Amino acid sequence: MSKRPLILVTNDDGITAPGIRALIEVMLEIGDVVVVAPDSPQSGMGHAITINSVLYIERVYIDNGKQIEYSCSGTPADCVKLAVKEILKRKPDLCVSGINHGSNSSINVIYSGTMSAALEAGIEGIPAIGFSLLDYNYNANFEATKKYVKIIAKNALDKGIPNNVVLNVNFPNLLEKDIKGIKICRQAKANWEEEFDKRQTPQGKDYYWLTGKFVNLDNGEDTDEWALENGYISVVPVQFDLTAHHAISNLNTWNLND
Amino acid sequence: MSKRPLILVTNDDGITAPGIRALIEVMLEIGDVVVVAPDSPQSGMGHAITINSVLYIERVYIDNGKQIEYSCSGTPADCVKLAVKEILKRKPDLCVSGINHGSNSSINVIYSGTMSAALEAGIEGIPAIGFSLLDYNYNANFEATKKYVKIIAKNALDKGIPNNVVLNVNFPNLLEKDIKGIKICRQAKANWEEEFDKRQTPQGKDYYWLTGKFVNLDNGEDTDEWALENGYISVVPVQFDLTAHHAISNLNTWNLND
Repeated sequence: MSKRPLILVTNDDGITAPGIRALIEVMLEIGDVVVVAPDSPQSGMGHAITINSVLYIERVYIDNGKQIEYSCSGTPADCVKLAVKEILKRKPDLCVSGINHGSNSSINVIYSGTMSAALEAGIEGIPAIGFSLLDYNYNANFEATKKYVKIIAKNALDKGIPNNVVLNVNFPNLLEKDIKGIKICRQAKANWEEEFDKRQTPQGKDYYWLTGKFVNLDNGEDTDEWALENGYISVVPVQFDLTAHHAISNLNTWNLND
Repeated sequence: MSKRPLILVTNDDGITAPGIRALIEVMLEIGDVVVVAPDSPQSGMGHAITINSVLYIERVYIDNGKQIEYSCSGTPADCVKLAVKEILKRKPDLCVSGINHGSNSSINVIYSGTMSAALEAGIEGIPAIGFSLLDYNYNANFEATKKYVKIIAKNALDKGIPNNVVLNVNFPNLLEKDIKGIKICRQAKANWEEEFDKRQTPQGKDYYWLTGKFVNLDNGEDTDEWALENGYISVVPVQFDLTAHHAISNLNTWNLND
């Protein structure tokens, strides 16, 4: 029997969130699991890292599973850096992040702590996948995701994720019987139309809550938004080379060096 | 005479940093300037947004310039969202972010608050540029950058930045006479080899400082790292569609829907 793979698990909702507990449960069926996850929710942290304050990390025991767990005071990206450099004895075979409580499809990938952890692992050369369920509730039901999380993770281990690519997997909020399958997609062109909820403190000072309305501007049937709206699980290969190669020739027509 | 362009200025080092003061000075030569910037340093914030706490914004008067300025309690991305939705009467013609004290070349774009502000503006459909100087010091000398900031901003206004693209401009830390010119580049393949500096609190608890060594893995002469090392200003067109389109066919060979 071949050696069991070493799997690093992290998230951005915090180490006690139901989403990461579901992910750990599935990963224990596949390999040896080490969890390094934030000690508190970090949603919307994007690719933040902690450079102006210190990081704490602590061995914790949350359930009776065989995984080894550490809670960390930092961001999701910090967790991956600390895991790789200070905790794990070797480079893990796979890093999985999530399962996020809420969508990280289309433009949400940019703001996502879940995906920043996966991207950080990818930058370090570790095959990595972020998983998210389209249900923001703390008590979201992750049952239907488990079968598919396992299929995707096993494919990643068996077939290998292309170099410099990380997977962004989103699950529609459906029962298992209603999920139509898995689709490889591109990121839909979409954005948030922000709406700020302006209020006043008891002392009369204005403040704002950020809220917004998600707007999908993309009619393509090859997008993650289309897949999710039509009952499929979306898998988008994501890269951290942000160069818009197609724009280079246009910019070379600018008058920059007179 | 045509109407003066409306320019939104922000950064991640905080509204009083010398880098943003230099940027404001140049932008006042080109257009009407509104500044919405963080009230404190936000380096390494990536594309963080504030969703679990409230945002304050305040009119401030920092120098005698003609710009209108607001300081904001949020992240760079929050500043752009608030500016566009709550402060500016119309969509700005250009958003500039920086000038950052320190490099945002190659993989640093991922961690950069400066670039997250520019990307946020780009997502909103506003032409946007992030500027950074390869000098982390608070008292960095921005004199040599001013001429080139103006050239690049004027080209952006006159020629237009390609749709869904944002510019990441980095300046070598050189005197103006030693700068060889401006090069359009791709993002170099590079990463940080983290080194955690482990210490103990006076109470005996372990903690870590994140430090690291930058490693350029890319020998290409068309990269931003090459340009900067060879005395050029680098301009990388950056996109927020993170899809690794080239990986889709490979992933379609996976066994996902048996």
